[in-house]
Amino acid sequence: MLKKINHIGIAVKDLDVAVEFYKKLGLKVEACEIVESQKVKVAFIPLGEVRIELLEATSDDSPIAKFIEKKGEGVHHIAMGTDKLIPTLKDVESQNIHLIDRVPRKGAHNMEIAFIHPKSTHGVLFELCEEKEKKT
Amino acid sequence: MLKKINHIGIAVKDLDVAVEFYKKLGLKVEACEIVESQKVKVAFIPLGEVRIELLEATSDDSPIAKFIEKKGEGVHHIAMGTDKLIPTLKDVESQNIHLIDRVPRKGAHNMEIAFIHPKSTHGVLFELCEEKEKKT
Repeated sequence: MLKKINHIGIAVKDLDVAVEFYKKLGLKVEACEIVESQKVKVAFIPLGEVRIELLEATSDDSPIAKFIEKKGEGVHHIAMGTDKLIPTLKDVESQNIHLIDRVPRKGAHNMEIAFIHPKSTHGVLFELCEEKEKKT
Repeated sequence: MLKKINHIGIAVKDLDVAVEFYKKLGLKVEACEIVESQKVKVAFIPLGEVRIELLEATSDDSPIAKFIEKKGEGVHHIAMGTDKLIPTLKDVESQNIHLIDRVPRKGAHNMEIAFIHPKSTHGVLFELCEEKEKKT
């Protein structure tokens, strides 16, 4: 069961330069994080219930470096949040939608994530991620 | 003052085919609308506080037809919602951010909208739109 857009991942060449644009729009940039497994440095920008995630490659063989080389800067992926990722992946597969990750892996913010193959999605790289709501 | 992501516009070749993918994810597709001024047919898919808008060109000279010809199917624009569009546009311009529309125009759902020039935004076509909240 998909609940919301969790974040929008945007590939940028230079995180510090891109961050300035979002600050000019009046948005607040949260602290950065390096995700070693994806070879990216990420800046988080909350906007309503969604986060904008700016992604800069930390290595030439990062998926983000390859994306920018092929397509230039721009939207890399859109993440949809679910409360239970494994049953959601099973539901998605049962609809003959092709997954890149049949088993969840760790993404930024230590979230469990999995990508849907863009061949199934009409051009968008969709991520599914498990949201653990904070009960206050 | 930007409040949230209002919608994500996704360019697709065939709206009926693309809609099937989103239905398979368990999402509900609202009724379609033709926006004559943009030469597009739009399907609205609410997900949390955001709408996914699937955009199919109704003519070969539609901006969406040109986008797909150049880049293929995928994310076309991201719209950020504000409660007052005209002051927001003035704020944005005062930060030396280049606008495509210095004066708002009508978009889907009869909303007042304006686009920021992607040269200012590190690869993303951002729309700003005025959200009229329903008071219940």
